Amino acid sequence: MRAARYYDRGDIRIEDIDEPVVTPGTVGIDVAWCGICGTDLHEYADGPIFIPPAGHPQPISGESAPVTLGHEMSGVVYAVGDGVDDVAVGDHVVVEPYIIGEGVDTGPDSHDYHLSADMNFIGLGGCGGGLGEKIVVKRRWVHPISPTIPLDQAALIEPLSVGFHAVERSGARSGDTAFITGAGPIGLLTAAVCKAEGVTTIVSEPSSLRRQKALEAKVADHVIDPSAEDVAARVRAITDGRGADVGFECTSVQPGLDALVDALAPRGVAVVVSIWSHPGSIDMQRLVLKELDMRGTIAYVNSHPATIRLVEEGRIDLAPFITGRIGLDNLVDDGFDTLLHHNETAVKILVSPSGAGL
Amino acid sequence: MRAARYYDRGDIRIEDIDEPVVTPGTVGIDVAWCGICGTDLHEYADGPIFIPPAGHPQPISGESAPVTLGHEMSGVVYAVGDGVDDVAVGDHVVVEPYIIGEGVDTGPDSHDYHLSADMNFIGLGGCGGGLGEKIVVKRRWVHPISPTIPLDQAALIEPLSVGFHAVERSGARSGDTAFITGAGPIGLLTAAVCKAEGVTTIVSEPSSLRRQKALEAKVADHVIDPSAEDVAARVRAITDGRGADVGFECTSVQPGLDALVDALAPRGVAVVVSIWSHPGSIDMQRLVLKELDMRGTIAYVNSHPATIRLVEEGRIDLAPFITGRIGLDNLVDDGFDTLLHHNETAVKILVSPSGAGL
Repeated sequence: MRAARYYDRGDIRIEDIDEPVVTPGTVGIDVAWCGICGTDLHEYADGPIFIPPAGHPQPISGESAPVTLGHEMSGVVYAVGDGVDDVAVGDHVVVEPYIIGEGVDTGPDSHDYHLSADMNFIGLGGCGGGLGEKIVVKRRWVHPISPTIPLDQAALIEPLSVGFHAVERSGARSGDTAFITGAGPIGLLTAAVCKAEGVTTIVSEPSSLRRQKALEAKVADHVIDPSAEDVAARVRAITDGRGADVGFECTSVQPGLDALVDALAPRGVAVVVSIWSHPGSIDMQRLVLKELDMRGTIAYVNSHPATIRLVEEGRIDLAPFITGRIGLDNLVDDGFDTLLHHNETAVKILVSPSGAGL
Repeated sequence: MRAARYYDRGDIRIEDIDEPVVTPGTVGIDVAWCGICGTDLHEYADGPIFIPPAGHPQPISGESAPVTLGHEMSGVVYAVGDGVDDVAVGDHVVVEPYIIGEGVDTGPDSHDYHLSADMNFIGLGGCGGGLGEKIVVKRRWVHPISPTIPLDQAALIEPLSVGFHAVERSGARSGDTAFITGAGPIGLLTAAVCKAEGVTTIVSEPSSLRRQKALEAKVADHVIDPSAEDVAARVRAITDGRGADVGFECTSVQPGLDALVDALAPRGVAVVVSIWSHPGSIDMQRLVLKELDMRGTIAYVNSHPATIRLVEEGRIDLAPFITGRIGLDNLVDDGFDTLLHHNETAVKILVSPSGAGL
């Protein structure tokens, strides 16, 4: 079968590799669609980061580069291994793409398996990837979805779960106002979860095309251009002088963080969703005098079932965020390079590894 | 009566001023003892900060420099105004030294009156101060205490309330481990509250004399010298590799913050207690990947009753933290200058404004 393999920074190859083998406790999935994530772009442009470099095996998977890429996938079950009796051939599924060590509690009440030692992701740290025609995944990480969710939209459930968990971390409640810095894919999907939960959203984003997307997709109640407006003053004006109850840092640049600390109400909660490659500078006096709360959030933990329900119930429409569909052969040119260099209009580009969806 | 008056940076004068007048709803207090706070030192060395400069009246008190200093006070009631029927002459009291605007809810269920607009402190923003022989305070801010608490120790209830509120903000529970950076007065008192609540304490402090004090006062279970040891490695060794559950930043210097972010367990909570005069640098990637939670805390809010109970019940002994007793005439030489320049052995220096306690 064909798959996109990451060898090293700037070196992704489309290759023929052996099909994965369905073993006891696993599920074989024909990948329908796989999204390209910002993390994939970082690995391509600046990595390897999460990907174990050649000769340095990931402690849990035992694999190192080359590895198959792709962790935002949807698909259809083509086989199940021994002992799997609650998923059947033909089921539509998405993958919660974790590589977690043996012995870690990943049960439905766990709040921290995603913070366990050497945690990594399927499609980065080994165990196959969604940018291949087939993948075999342990039952634990396979989530059945209703066939009423189109499979292309289902590929966005993984990044939507990131937004869901970020909103969980914020403690936002219906009636609150959220201030979101950055309208990239994660900013938009976090805003979508806020709206589904009854939270008013204010999105700050310098690109007019992205602001327009946030409005058209109905995930932003208000948009602000930080290059032309006093962001915190606008947020205060919208919130009757109080400031926002919660905030989401989705830019990984300093002005986004500064605006958040400035625009939050006393006792406000700032959730840092983006992955920063450099230290952030914090106005500590303001953090103290406003008793702000700055929380990191990474990925998701037992977030998929509730996220899937939001989509199944029609409370979130993922269609507006799909801005491109390509095959594996165009992955680098039409996928990675577009997102790295022409990404004002591109939100999520989906890949059909077999080409069947195109 | 005599009082210490702040005129400007480096200019504190001991003067004769009029006695305050007891009006309806207020309580007249003969000040027994008043501690010198780090905030007072900042005002003296670098201010005015909280203090309204001459000609710039504080919006609520309407006062500007010169103002009487001192906000960590204990005393005995000598008169009560009309309408005050639950405090009597002769009662021992401490003051929760707030200046809060009219219309703000300061009831027992309020969680945020200390974050209200233009909030300031008695003894900084006007309304008299504990570094005068007498003070008149609104009933709301007067807390009766048991006469079993010596009045000198009672003067430490105000800074202890800061520690109490910081521990509240952390969410620490009995059985948790707290890592505290800095063994100045606030670090020590925060550690004292942790111990009273059943929390194991690890205190990092470069001064050997201060580390010794933390051990002798029985508020530190473990001490670390950050100039000689790998702080985070020691914290992990003490906590079976996990890291601390909660942390308290009581240094206002970057290495303290770095150690905290490094030494906390996943999902750990870092409470910033110290007032920083410069931005802090945060390892954002660690904040995100460990899902840390960094919370500011300022002063106290409905914290005095519970703090007083901890002292009344003997769960905290404040005696070890009193390291000096002086009169008003020696305030600058033996108080401020000692704390600013020879503060390794000085924790809390108490002032007897009338000299009666000396």
